[in-house]
Amino acid sequence: MFSDDDFYYMSQAIELAKKGRFTTTPNPNVGCVIVKDGQIVGQGYHQRAGEGHAEVNALKEAGRKAQDATAYVTLEPCSHFGRTPPCAEGLAKAGVKRVIAAMVDPNPKVAGRGLAMLEQAGVEVSYGLMQTQARALNKGFIKRMEHGLPYVTCKLAASLDGKTALKNGQSKWITGATARQDVQYFRAQSCAILSGADTVILDNAKLNVRADECKIELPQGLSLRQPVRVVIDSQNRLTPDLALFQIESPILILRTHLDNSVQWPHFVEQIVLQEQHQKVSCHAVLECLASRGINGVWLESGATLAGVFAQQKLIDEYVIYLAPKLIGSYGRSLFSLPEVTAMDDVAQLEFLDVSQVGDDIRITAKPC
Amino acid sequence: MFSDDDFYYMSQAIELAKKGRFTTTPNPNVGCVIVKDGQIVGQGYHQRAGEGHAEVNALKEAGRKAQDATAYVTLEPCSHFGRTPPCAEGLAKAGVKRVIAAMVDPNPKVAGRGLAMLEQAGVEVSYGLMQTQARALNKGFIKRMEHGLPYVTCKLAASLDGKTALKNGQSKWITGATARQDVQYFRAQSCAILSGADTVILDNAKLNVRADECKIELPQGLSLRQPVRVVIDSQNRLTPDLALFQIESPILILRTHLDNSVQWPHFVEQIVLQEQHQKVSCHAVLECLASRGINGVWLESGATLAGVFAQQKLIDEYVIYLAPKLIGSYGRSLFSLPEVTAMDDVAQLEFLDVSQVGDDIRITAKPC
Repeated sequence: MFSDDDFYYMSQAIELAKKGRFTTTPNPNVGCVIVKDGQIVGQGYHQRAGEGHAEVNALKEAGRKAQDATAYVTLEPCSHFGRTPPCAEGLAKAGVKRVIAAMVDPNPKVAGRGLAMLEQAGVEVSYGLMQTQARALNKGFIKRMEHGLPYVTCKLAASLDGKTALKNGQSKWITGATARQDVQYFRAQSCAILSGADTVILDNAKLNVRADECKIELPQGLSLRQPVRVVIDSQNRLTPDLALFQIESPILILRTHLDNSVQWPHFVEQIVLQEQHQKVSCHAVLECLASRGINGVWLESGATLAGVFAQQKLIDEYVIYLAPKLIGSYGRSLFSLPEVTAMDDVAQLEFLDVSQVGDDIRITAKPC
Repeated sequence: MFSDDDFYYMSQAIELAKKGRFTTTPNPNVGCVIVKDGQIVGQGYHQRAGEGHAEVNALKEAGRKAQDATAYVTLEPCSHFGRTPPCAEGLAKAGVKRVIAAMVDPNPKVAGRGLAMLEQAGVEVSYGLMQTQARALNKGFIKRMEHGLPYVTCKLAASLDGKTALKNGQSKWITGATARQDVQYFRAQSCAILSGADTVILDNAKLNVRADECKIELPQGLSLRQPVRVVIDSQNRLTPDLALFQIESPILILRTHLDNSVQWPHFVEQIVLQEQHQKVSCHAVLECLASRGINGVWLESGATLAGVFAQQKLIDEYVIYLAPKLIGSYGRSLFSLPEVTAMDDVAQLEFLDVSQVGDDIRITAKPC
């Protein structure tokens, strides 16, 4: 059904889509390639919410050459009037003869309606080409659309023997500069960075993206976006003097009850969420973030919070850095989990990738 | 100095040497290729102590074609009369014109004398070609010759979060069948398998090579050798009813004092070694093993013994299997080490290799 050429052009569209991965939130990453007579006549990708969709940008470049052309899109063209008119309509109006979409849009507002709109306009439509790769582009967006929750990636760093810190709490620096740079790169692609008050206070963490550390090359005209910083603070322990609050960029503090005695900077919002055992419910945290358009959450916390998320099966992916060090049994463990008495009851993962990052190793895994 | 052809023939000799890796102990693995007029006329490798050296086997195959040929040997030909006459003499007598050795023999009985003997006989001699690869063939033999100690590889298996067992001690099975098969392969290449009485008793471990599990293909005529099983038993806790003693193959029990009240099977030897804090000194253990011709020790113990060896800097290499599991903070730690209060004082390693082994990951590292 799909030719080698189709695969080639769709891979190009996927590469284009990736260019938006630091900036499109809460929208998905989408790329589009328009081909006529074996020539690419238009290329586009979505850069930023409120600006042109991939198809619009590609059609603009193609101009009149779009007539009778084939459009390769990594996601089904939209069918609804949002901040821009529907792309399905735009492609049909431009005279595109055939549209190949890598996947159907998981957004319930679209969900096949874009392809139907094209068919009704007489455009030849097919989908499913390189779907796996296309889904990988938008793990967060898809999770939010399909489950009403963001895609949660849990980041941890430990010694080879699984210790995150010395007994005295010291954890700087377990991993090397290259691994820490790698973390910045992941942070920059996330919509939110989530942590617990304990970790923020202990490390006096800023939880921001430090542009100078991550060497990210952005397309012209685009600048690095700071993910929303989210801190679970069940016992109202955060104070405005922490380094976190010295950087002017949105912060959400999630609490079980408000504390109006403290004067927070204007970019800080306190939200009261449902309790679970006197603590903010982790599920409620994620629902709250999804409702605010957060696709991907980068969870960078201590063993306790990571353990609670793991136990409640709220983690979609683990990114664990292991340093070539041995700390020994006095060190602090990676995960606080309840005692298990049988090997069969142990939480099971699947390794997805292992890479050398500087002197350290980065292991990517997902729960099974 | 060395041509592409030289590299090619030496790699062949190295491949040949590898064939002996399950059987040559206490001798090194050696391969030899004899080349005349661009043709390999003789090939050989050392199979077993007491049998022909690599050069002897290759010369036998070459016959009269050895005249004016070049011999590629992974280790300097020997110069001393041992169980066989010196190979340097054999090569010269056969009329070999040129000898290229990958490395000088670290055995103090040879140490350059083989090459000197060849030069005196008018043979053109050079060495150092693919030395790194040649050294890797005989890490154990070289360590013993250069330092009077065996090469110690510490094997451990843990969950991704560095736990070797549940709180209740259960550890079967953390890793999968493929990783356990991989361990058999390493055991089979070791001269000795070393453990502590605690682990042997807890797991009722046999510490043997199970041929059916490791699928090792041996050259015809060679059979799998059982490494010597060595158990440190500082408190005389081993008893003859353990599974270890049901397999008829040499066992060394290392103790601080003899216990003559127990009747051991004939293949068991008790040795009293120097004490260190009421326990058998680990350094004394290794000296004892080296004196008995043990080149490579596969240390498969619990966190305590592994920790003592690590702390005393007696480990040359770590082979750590990580399973895609999360056990949590109640699990047992990989290494028992004394408390460290500054990150700079933490034991530092270097990662050498990371591989996927079945569903698990195998990490190889060495101390720096």
